[in-house]
Amino acid sequence: MTEHPQTGESGATEMQKNRRVGVAIVGVGGAVATTAIAGVAMIRKGLAGTDGLPLADAPGTGSLVAYENLVFGGWDLSGEDLSEAAASHGVLDKAQIFAVKDELDAVVPWPAAGNREFCRNAKGDNVAVASGHREQVEMIRTDLRRFREENALDEVVLVNLASTERAVDPSSPVLASAGAFERGVEESDPAIGPAMLYAYAAISSGVPYVNFTPSAAADVPALVELAGRENVPVSGKDGKTGQTMVKTVLAPAFRSRGLKVEGWFSTNILGNRDGQILDDPDSLASKVTTKGSVLDEMLGYPVKDHIVSIHYYPPRGDDKEAWDNIDLVGFMGRRMQMKVNFLCSDSVLAAPLVIELVRLSELAKRRGEGGVQEQFGLFFKAPTVANGHAPEHALHRQEERLFKWLLSGSPDAS
Amino acid sequence: MTEHPQTGESGATEMQKNRRVGVAIVGVGGAVATTAIAGVAMIRKGLAGTDGLPLADAPGTGSLVAYENLVFGGWDLSGEDLSEAAASHGVLDKAQIFAVKDELDAVVPWPAAGNREFCRNAKGDNVAVASGHREQVEMIRTDLRRFREENALDEVVLVNLASTERAVDPSSPVLASAGAFERGVEESDPAIGPAMLYAYAAISSGVPYVNFTPSAAADVPALVELAGRENVPVSGKDGKTGQTMVKTVLAPAFRSRGLKVEGWFSTNILGNRDGQILDDPDSLASKVTTKGSVLDEMLGYPVKDHIVSIHYYPPRGDDKEAWDNIDLVGFMGRRMQMKVNFLCSDSVLAAPLVIELVRLSELAKRRGEGGVQEQFGLFFKAPTVANGHAPEHALHRQEERLFKWLLSGSPDAS
Amino acid sequence: MTEHPQTGESGATEMQKNRRVGVAIVGVGGAVATTAIAGVAMIRKGLAGTDGLPLADAPGTGSLVAYENLVFGGWDLSGEDLSEAAASHGVLDKAQIFAVKDELDAVVPWPAAGNREFCRNAKGDNVAVASGHREQVEMIRTDLRRFREENALDEVVLVNLASTERAVDPSSPVLASAGAFERGVEESDPAIGPAMLYAYAAISSGVPYVNFTPSAAADVPALVELAGRENVPVSGKDGKTGQTMVKTVLAPAFRSRGLKVEGWFSTNILGNRDGQILDDPDSLASKVTTKGSVLDEMLGYPVKDHIVSIHYYPPRGDDKEAWDNIDLVGFMGRRMQMKVNFLCSDSVLAAPLVIELVRLSELAKRRGEGGVQEQFGLFFKAPTVANGHAPEHALHRQEERLFKWLLSGSPDAS
Amino acid sequence: MTEHPQTGESGATEMQKNRRVGVAIVGVGGAVATTAIAGVAMIRKGLAGTDGLPLADAPGTGSLVAYENLVFGGWDLSGEDLSEAAASHGVLDKAQIFAVKDELDAVVPWPAAGNREFCRNAKGDNVAVASGHREQVEMIRTDLRRFREENALDEVVLVNLASTERAVDPSSPVLASAGAFERGVEESDPAIGPAMLYAYAAISSGVPYVNFTPSAAADVPALVELAGRENVPVSGKDGKTGQTMVKTVLAPAFRSRGLKVEGWFSTNILGNRDGQILDDPDSLASKVTTKGSVLDEMLGYPVKDHIVSIHYYPPRGDDKEAWDNIDLVGFMGRRMQMKVNFLCSDSVLAAPLVIELVRLSELAKRRGEGGVQEQFGLFFKAPTVANGHAPEHALHRQEERLFKWLLSGSPDAS
Repeated sequence: MTEHPQTGESGATEMQKNRRVGVAIVGVGGAVATTAIAGVAMIRKGLAGTDGLPLADAPGTGSLVAYENLVFGGWDLSGEDLSEAAASHGVLDKAQIFAVKDELDAVVPWPAAGNREFCRNAKGDNVAVASGHREQVEMIRTDLRRFREENALDEVVLVNLASTERAVDPSSPVLASAGAFERGVEESDPAIGPAMLYAYAAISSGVPYVNFTPSAAADVPALVELAGRENVPVSGKDGKTGQTMVKTVLAPAFRSRGLKVEGWFSTNILGNRDGQILDDPDSLASKVTTKGSVLDEMLGYPVKDHIVSIHYYPPRGDDKEAWDNIDLVGFMGRRMQMKVNFLCSDSVLAAPLVIELVRLSELAKRRGEGGVQEQFGLFFKAPTVANGHAPEHALHRQEERLFKWLLSGSPDAS
Repeated sequence: MTEHPQTGESGATEMQKNRRVGVAIVGVGGAVATTAIAGVAMIRKGLAGTDGLPLADAPGTGSLVAYENLVFGGWDLSGEDLSEAAASHGVLDKAQIFAVKDELDAVVPWPAAGNREFCRNAKGDNVAVASGHREQVEMIRTDLRRFREENALDEVVLVNLASTERAVDPSSPVLASAGAFERGVEESDPAIGPAMLYAYAAISSGVPYVNFTPSAAADVPALVELAGRENVPVSGKDGKTGQTMVKTVLAPAFRSRGLKVEGWFSTNILGNRDGQILDDPDSLASKVTTKGSVLDEMLGYPVKDHIVSIHYYPPRGDDKEAWDNIDLVGFMGRRMQMKVNFLCSDSVLAAPLVIELVRLSELAKRRGEGGVQEQFGLFFKAPTVANGHAPEHALHRQEERLFKWLLSGSPDAS
Repeated sequence: MTEHPQTGESGATEMQKNRRVGVAIVGVGGAVATTAIAGVAMIRKGLAGTDGLPLADAPGTGSLVAYENLVFGGWDLSGEDLSEAAASHGVLDKAQIFAVKDELDAVVPWPAAGNREFCRNAKGDNVAVASGHREQVEMIRTDLRRFREENALDEVVLVNLASTERAVDPSSPVLASAGAFERGVEESDPAIGPAMLYAYAAISSGVPYVNFTPSAAADVPALVELAGRENVPVSGKDGKTGQTMVKTVLAPAFRSRGLKVEGWFSTNILGNRDGQILDDPDSLASKVTTKGSVLDEMLGYPVKDHIVSIHYYPPRGDDKEAWDNIDLVGFMGRRMQMKVNFLCSDSVLAAPLVIELVRLSELAKRRGEGGVQEQFGLFFKAPTVANGHAPEHALHRQEERLFKWLLSGSPDAS
Repeated sequence: MTEHPQTGESGATEMQKNRRVGVAIVGVGGAVATTAIAGVAMIRKGLAGTDGLPLADAPGTGSLVAYENLVFGGWDLSGEDLSEAAASHGVLDKAQIFAVKDELDAVVPWPAAGNREFCRNAKGDNVAVASGHREQVEMIRTDLRRFREENALDEVVLVNLASTERAVDPSSPVLASAGAFERGVEESDPAIGPAMLYAYAAISSGVPYVNFTPSAAADVPALVELAGRENVPVSGKDGKTGQTMVKTVLAPAFRSRGLKVEGWFSTNILGNRDGQILDDPDSLASKVTTKGSVLDEMLGYPVKDHIVSIHYYPPRGDDKEAWDNIDLVGFMGRRMQMKVNFLCSDSVLAAPLVIELVRLSELAKRRGEGGVQEQFGLFFKAPTVANGHAPEHALHRQEERLFKWLLSGSPDAS
């Protein structure tokens, strides 16, 4: 690609690519995390290519750190070996786990910091009990510092892959401003949930933060403000895989052809932990609500009969199957139908997005661009925006925005 | 929208919208043409809305002529009443035909100009026999002139909706330059097919030309050259409806997510005349070839196992059903599948595109922009390009290009 | 068919076919009832053939009364004209309703008998208030008698097509024996629901009874006993259309091939009143439970992951769409999948079954075979059985049993 | 099951179950054969259960030999180790092949007997050249004799699993009678194909014969006659797996509900050798023809628009996917649709049928019932019948017939 890697911009690029970047994951023993760790290990060993990685050879991506340079760590309520955790998730096959067992087991889950209140129902036992929010934050910061030092990392990015938390009231006063939030930390205010504490610890340590779950975290006003003030990149939330991804591809096309969406029925069957949690009516409700507004925003009108149904269906394991039926009205009122059946693997779709978000967050930090990274919206179901912006959901416009950003500061761009 | 329609830009826009635009269709008794004619009549009567019309309310479309101002005419080998033709096509229901019977029957098909050679196998009997290419061209030009005068039209656009012709050899010398082509017309060169004669007659009359069929016409070098010289807008070819439309939406999304397309199996069942023609292996072959390259160009690599199969299946009538199976390879080599089942109506998807292409062609003419209108590619399976450009197939990028063009000269754009 | 219709068995058959049979329907203004009435009228006028009628030309059916000889009547809470009711159901198209408007409107809904208690929440106003169960039963019996006399009917069959009632406790003492039930009628016992009163009125009048709904009626022990004692044919319950019908076809085939059903996920979208009612979690629960056991009984083992999900989805109107995903385990543990997508019309599948059940019930009565007609199980989701028999669900075995019964007493059988 | 296995009927049954039965397969290195061999080995080792085996626990099957007692051998043009052949077929996964590698490799393919004429195009090199038909037959008989002796077998059954041969003219005089055929063998008549020679060698050796392929073999009149005369059980042809199996389940159900089949479109994608061969228009044509008549015979009327399309689609390997669209007409002319998508593995569906056919053929022989075994029709697409019988295609009636036969001579039946 370049004839003189030692000098000039290409040389700089080469050096940047070689930076060692730590990935500190909340929920490091989960299905997505272990898939990401195994995948990077397989790439490093030449056992996997870059299929499924969105930014493997897109324009402007030359300035991102190499996949091989990602170093994994993180917290988990379970102290189980990651190779065993991976086996139980059923995403990777035996041969794949065998091939990277050492790399997986080298990542020993750090005890998840928790205060007495939050630990009450915790199922795992890999817990470091804290006296309150403040101590918990300090423990997280200490973990991040140690991770960086022990691995001689140039940068660390914190990614939230923990199980979805209960919905919080975003209008709570303690979440309204950075100042109120910091007081809330001191006072262990119960309105501040665990995901927010991790986000706060990251931001206040200058560590870029990615929220891949639907939980409230860096998207509350207090932490958006803080991320801006500290100039730390934050992005979220809820990784866009599977059915919603398809929706953000098809809906703009229907609009483009003037086809009116009269109804959209989406059903999902999945057998992993996610499915089990979403089988709970409350969790499902919040998930479904999010999915609904996405469609209306893309189409420009409300789809009255938009139904999203999610079922826990164990025969599938981590494999997920979505079936969508879309009722369309065309010219002269003519009704048409489209049905889409997607047989996919949730974690295999999600892991590469996590990896790319880490690489992008590192680049944003390196470029000195903090605060909400709206241009990462491509990877999220509910893109966090700042300053009252309306989120963009259409996949192709999201991609365009990201590519523009990538090229804007890239030597490729000239 | 505006309070003072008589003055300023809005006034100009208002006047432009009120221009009367003739649509001269080759194959005016066909399914797509009768659907377009009935649809515009229903809009005029307030019986149909603008569902299915891509540019009904898109930004920058304020300068297009109103749907109500389109006036239809055209040639057909059959002299059958259009209401009867429409009934036999099975696209419109009885109530719709009843509601616009008068408007349909007011369009009396002009005899299709044909010389002895080409008429030999013509199935219809509504034919005006010509002594050769030159006389045929003159008859077409006379028809266009008479159409304009009798209807007091501000502009006329010619649209090819005739049955697909046999493939021609595009490297034939007579098609290589405008000069050679004009000599070929004088000499009734057999390399010049009927579609080209209509295109030539239009261009040489200053009438914008749209080729909605896969036949070779204004896309041969000679006519591209002529369209540029005469500054007449031409566009084509092969209207993008149904399965290919879906393909140009999904393929970019797979690329965007790094999902490798390992195989794409597409099957279609349709019971209209199109299906009958495509059941013929030769016609099918050419259709299939076109569809194949579209996919590879969008993905950036060849999909070895891309199969497109089309079947004549009478139970469906004009309704068309497509079933696609796509084999994908994701992260770590994980295989996934997507299946798409589209139950649509070919003519109902096609007619609005024809209508929009007429409105766009009129605008291009009014703006003084002649030659190949690459920015209309959104509506074509095999977009005609000029000057060696590579065609863009991704639906969203095509749309973006069109919108940019629309806004560039529009008062909305400021 | 026969040269001497006046004499011998064929003559008898001819006479039997010409018997006039009244169909007294609870819910005569509903979608299924109006479809049945319109269908028979169209057959009589030569406007419809016998497609969709299971016993139109099956062996042994020569002794059933002719479709043309069915005379309709019945109760409905709404007094609306049946042609208007049919139009609102959206099953028949305008031309069909137009063609048989007179026949539809000739059926004027009788006021539904109701006592004060049960009427409280009744939505319709076509109600004849009764002082209690006994008076209500008498009113029903009077209606049946008047129906028979006014129309010079040879036989009357009562069919329950009313909306599904709340589940009842089948072990209630008042439902345990004919004697207890009759005392309960006198005392207006609240454990006796409206459907049971209609069934009781029919049986005690010697009128065959068909329960096409999931409500408890002639299947409670008291009424089974009474039907036997009075020698009146009764059958039920819950008409087998759509998805369950498909299930009772595929499950035996999987068993036949030794394919283990690991999971069966069924989702339904429908936009008619049924869908609206089933959108209520309670009604859904009972429906789903019934469907579940059917599968297990046919396969011979419990399918742990059998999910049935029903959604009210208005864009479809009376059209119903079912999507099933079946996970199978084959030889050597190999997993396979089958997906079935059925686009059907609930009422159009149901109405012919109602018509056939009336013809069969009349035949049973004529043959002197009273009590539970197990051999009609072909048409029911939850076939009522007597004497502790296990119900048969496999469609083909049910059909075989019916055909055997038909042939056993038929002149065709010799 | 029995306390005194040494005495009485149960003792006899026990002894029968313990008979050692040889399976001599033409095409022993193919996908179906290696799957069958591996499957039986896994059952023997307790590594596989009986899922997918139709007669594992059906009534009356107690008198069949145990799966564990099947001993495999056979011919193949390729001398490749069976474990390697299995790996290349892609049916079994690595762990399965590893587990039964010894058992697979213990089956060393015998050289396929061939004369010069037939060997010309043979791709394999594991060939024993014969001077003509007679010598070829003798070689096959010798192989069968040696197989029996070396393995101390109580019985041998020959199964044809070779690639489909070109269609033959069944009215050829040499195929018309046993006498003519035997003369044809002497004269090496070219109308006698390889499959017939194997069938002839088996029958004339008293070895039951099963034709699992579409090739002409024991179904020609000459060999039907011979099988009767020699009292040797023969059955065929063309194993019924996948799409046709589903068709013989659904079509009777549609008939049962009076639903008229207006059109049936079937498409298949498969990537194994079968797919490659069927991609050849000639082979496809014969396959498609067979499938077509099956449907018409079951429904009782011709389905004009019955289309069967088969595509070689390598991404699937041995996995096969079928997509069917069925257009139905119901009551009052209402049109409905059903779509069935079956993701299966051809060889995994076929292998158990082969195993059961061997067990059944042995039982027929033991019972002294020779000639065409019509009651095995359950397992064939084109059941061979005798004496001008019409074949039964409906799966459930086929099954019933088989079960009746099984029970008729079984101690279970009493």
